[in-house]
Order: sequence, then structure tokens, then C-alpha cells
Amino acid sequence: MDGELLPPVHPRPDLPGRVRIWEVGPRDGLQNEPSIVPAEVKAELVTRLVGAGLSTVETTSFVNPSWVPQLADAEEVFTLLAPLRAAHEASASGHAGLRLPVLVPNLPGLERARSCGVRDVAVFASATETFARKNLNRSREDALEMFAPVVAEARADGIGVRAYVSMCFGDPWEGAVPESDVVAVCERLLEMGAEELSLGDTIGVATTGQVVDLLDALARAGIGAAQLAVHFHDTYGQALANTLTALSCGITTVDSSAGGLGGCPFAKSATGNLATEDLCWALAGAGVETGVDLRRLVETSVWMADRLARPSPSRVVRALAAKTKESP
Amino acid sequence: MDGELLPPVHPRPDLPGRVRIWEVGPRDGLQNEPSIVPAEVKAELVTRLVGAGLSTVETTSFVNPSWVPQLADAEEVFTLLAPLRAAHEASASGHAGLRLPVLVPNLPGLERARSCGVRDVAVFASATETFARKNLNRSREDALEMFAPVVAEARADGIGVRAYVSMCFGDPWEGAVPESDVVAVCERLLEMGAEELSLGDTIGVATTGQVVDLLDALARAGIGAAQLAVHFHDTYGQALANTLTALSCGITTVDSSAGGLGGCPFAKSATGNLATEDLCWALAGAGVETGVDLRRLVETSVWMADRLARPSPSRVVRALAAKTKESP
Repeated sequence: MDGELLPPVHPRPDLPGRVRIWEVGPRDGLQNEPSIVPAEVKAELVTRLVGAGLSTVETTSFVNPSWVPQLADAEEVFTLLAPLRAAHEASASGHAGLRLPVLVPNLPGLERARSCGVRDVAVFASATETFARKNLNRSREDALEMFAPVVAEARADGIGVRAYVSMCFGDPWEGAVPESDVVAVCERLLEMGAEELSLGDTIGVATTGQVVDLLDALARAGIGAAQLAVHFHDTYGQALANTLTALSCGITTVDSSAGGLGGCPFAKSATGNLATEDLCWALAGAGVETGVDLRRLVETSVWMADRLARPSPSRVVRALAAKTKESP
Repeated sequence: MDGELLPPVHPRPDLPGRVRIWEVGPRDGLQNEPSIVPAEVKAELVTRLVGAGLSTVETTSFVNPSWVPQLADAEEVFTLLAPLRAAHEASASGHAGLRLPVLVPNLPGLERARSCGVRDVAVFASATETFARKNLNRSREDALEMFAPVVAEARADGIGVRAYVSMCFGDPWEGAVPESDVVAVCERLLEMGAEELSLGDTIGVATTGQVVDLLDALARAGIGAAQLAVHFHDTYGQALANTLTALSCGITTVDSSAGGLGGCPFAKSATGNLATEDLCWALAGAGVETGVDLRRLVETSVWMADRLARPSPSRVVRALAAKTKESP
């Protein structure tokens, strides 16, 4: 990172020395943008994010295009990224140095992803019954059964599998979510073969003590930090505090969205992801390694905000935009 | 608070059981608003904030009106609040149940405040030389000498005195601020007779490890949490995380601004205070008492946002605005 743009380092011994950021902006961010972004811009966004040091960038979603028209160009985006992927495959770090996971909801989605050469996929489960029915149009149990062959086939093919678990901390229809429900869904997904679970606070209501309690409940069930990631939304302004709390509980993988993509500063309710830049500022100050070049990341988010014709909701992007300048 | 509007309680044993919120919106918030708010609206804001359970509301500033035209009506606002003050003086809790501190920069300011019946004042010192010169137009040392008789006269009169210390975590001109400078300024202010010091992150750059380190340095100098408050700005999105970290270090007084007043969501750089509502959400979830009725507070911030003709930057206000409704 660039020294002059960063806060002084005051190490926090209770945090891990290194955190892996799972960048979700191109997928989770853009699928929530009202406008449709051209495939070339999406591919350039991913390329820039990788150039800023993000080594895991969730690229797109192979859902039915009629469900998420914003990401209907999944094949095209992934194909445009072929040179980037080839360059990394040939580099010293190989595949491990760059992961471009995609969302797949079912076997047809996995088939489409596989035919594009996808090496990492994610399925999207729900901790609550109501959200499963609203988001996946089937019961929570039926959704899990839909994912089982997806996970099995992907793993058999050497494809990495993450599972999102949404509504882990609250549900707009059901209210509080019992920890035992989250634990049960997590256990099922791990039994299926998912390698990592991302615990989602989809409506952004979680508070720090709740984060500790849920991670404790999972640990008691034998599901430790090494198998988990956290995914906080900033709807109630709690995303960074919750994330740092999770890190102090041993979590080392964090989902965030460059520039806070997906959260609109003009919307009545800002439901965006934690901004990657705001996370990076906190981690840089705490002496936690992320591999991210904050200057290049802010430049990327400023560029993307121009494409979307509205300012980034990330506080760090707004604070640093004037201090960064695109290289000519 | 209203159960249906609040997160479930997951106690955090590392936090204090009760936190005193020092509400700064009417002063620190409105002095940074581009528009001038009528005195009647300011007085109604204070009255509503008190009605929402905030028992310490910084009301205005008795600085030279030419410096801060937004607060030139200090006498008028304070006079409009006479009935509110009288009602509280006559109540069981008496003066202790309601504090309406004001900022005073010098002896003429103290004189104006005293003639209005002010019972609590605050002076505004700087941890850095450059900010003292920019903000107070004199050296850091000269500023401290200007405050000494203000603090002495106020205390002799039975008036409570707080001292703000700005730029404790970083300075836009000087960069990193040595902890020893902050400690030295704090020691001087306590020696003068200030009863409480508010440590300000005026440009919002602080990170959590830095908060721990500064509080440790102060404790080593004999300045403990009971004499301190924290005042974080959200310029880099760190305000809530920093505040919770300070609370875990034993701090029990926190400055925040209702609705995030003073931070403009449309500004290039959002430099607002921590929003009181976002803080209350975090504390309610952690089982920390504040005495605040979140529904009434959100109603107040929605009302104030209407007066300012722009949305509140508080995430909680935006999330809950539709769920609250003014009583007829």
C-alpha cells in the first residue's frame, strides 16, 4: 500500500495477522444496481480490482437471466476475463493466486459456469424459511436439496465450493433468527461438501454481541473460523464494527464490496455491503495484511462511480478521491 | 426503547452497563450545516432530543457570531429553552437530570453564557499546533492560556466545564499526532480545572488499535476513563468501531450527533459525527443502557431532516424512517 494514503499502524494483537478479502462488488454489488452495466465495463472492473491486489473477486452469477437481468451477460463477462485468467494460471502463484468465483443456483447454472472454465462457485442458501421461499421460490429444505448435487458435481470436478447462508442475524419477515437454525443449515451445507460458509447479515441488523454469540454457537457445533467467512451489510451502520468483532473471534475471510457497490447513497434505505476501502482502512491501521493497494482500489471505485454516474457510498472513497489520481 | 424497533440483546460483558451519550447535534452538527436554521427550530430540536431521553444536549456556541454565523442566535436559543430548563430544575432529578452545555471560547463568551443562566460549558483546545492556529488563530500554548481563566471563573461559579481536545488522532496538516502531545494538552486542561476531556478525531482517520494505544498512554499518565469522553467522526467510516473499542477500554461517555447532523450525504467528503441512532442500535444490541427512546429519536431526526430539506446521513434513520411515524 501507499504510505501517504494510509493511517499509522497500531497493531491489534487480538486480530489475525492476515485477512483474505472476498471481493463481492462485481456480483453482489452490481446485481443490486438499478442500471445495467455493459459486459466490457464489468470485465474491466474485475481486472482493475485484481490489479489493486484483490485475489478473490466474485465475478458474476449464472442464475436464470430472467431473475437477475443485471447479470444476464455472465458468459460474456467470464469470456472477456480469459486473458486475465490465463496470465495468472501461467504465473508463479498459479490458480491459487487468483480466484474468480461465480454464483450458481442449480445444475443448469453449474453447467453454464463449467463450460466457461469457472474454477470456483458459490451456492446461496437461507437460514430462514421465508427468505428461502421469497428468494429461491422453494422451502429451505427443498433449496438445500437443490444444492446437494450442485456441490457434489462441482467438487467431483475439482471446482471450489462456497455456500452463502443468508439471514443469519435477522429476517425481515420472521424477525430474530434462532442460532440453532443457522447452525443446522451450516451443518447441512458442510455435509454436502461446501468448503467455506459465508454468514450473511442480509438486512444489516446484526450487532457485535450477536456476532460473538453466533460464532460461539457454531464453534460449539464443531464449525470453526477456518470454515467460515462473514458478510455484513451496512443498513444500520454496523458492518465494520461487526466485521472487526468477527476477526477478533478468529475469522480470517471477509466479504466486502469495492466502493460499497450495491448500496445507493440516495436510496431511502442504504442496504449496501461493507465497502472494501473502509475495511482496508481499518485493517491497515490495525497492522493486518490484506495485499490491497488502497490507492489503486480507490481509483477503481472512483472510475466505477463515474460509470454508474453517482458517487460511491464508501466513506474512504469519498475522503480519498481527491488525493488519488488516475495514472495517465 | 420500543421493542419492535430494536435488535435482539446479546450482552457484551466487556462493555460498560450504561453509557452517557453527550448529544452534540444542535451545536457541532448545525454549525457545520450550510444553511442557517431558525432559533425556534433549534430550540424545538433540543426539546425533542431531551424528550427522546438524551439528558446531555450541547445546545449552542457562544463564540463570536462572525466566526460561526450558524450559531449567532445563541442567546435567543438558550432563552427559548427556559421553560424546558425550569421544568427539569423543578423535577425530582433536578439539574442533574438535564444538562444543556454550550461552547465558550473565551471570557466574553463565558460572560454571555452566564448571563443566560448556562450551567455547563465547554472549551475547545487543540492537540496540534497547526489546528490551533487555523481554528483559534493563536498558538496551541496561547489558546490554553486563553482558556485558563475561563475554566477558573466557570468553576468558581459552580459551572461544569468540559474541554474538547481536537485532532487527537491525526491532523490534516501535520499528519500523525504524537500521543505525548495529546497527553500533555490533556494534563494542562485537567490542571486548569476541566472536569472532563473529550478526545476528538476531528478528521475521522483514527483506527481501533490507535484508540486503544492513546487511551493506554493517557492511563499511564494518570488520566483514566472516568475523566474522558470520545468524539469520533465518520469521515473514513470508522466512527462506530472506534467508539465501541473505546467503550471496551472503560470509556462511559460518548459524543454523537442525532441523525448524523453535520455530515452531508451529498458532500464530496462526508465529515459528520457518529450518528446517535447508529450508536444506539449498537448499544441496544449489546445490552448497554443509554436511556434513549430510539423511535422518538428517529422521529426527531426525520423531522430535522425535513427542516434541512435533505435526508439524514444516519443509516439507522434511513432504515427506520418508514417504520416510525410522528404521533398526531
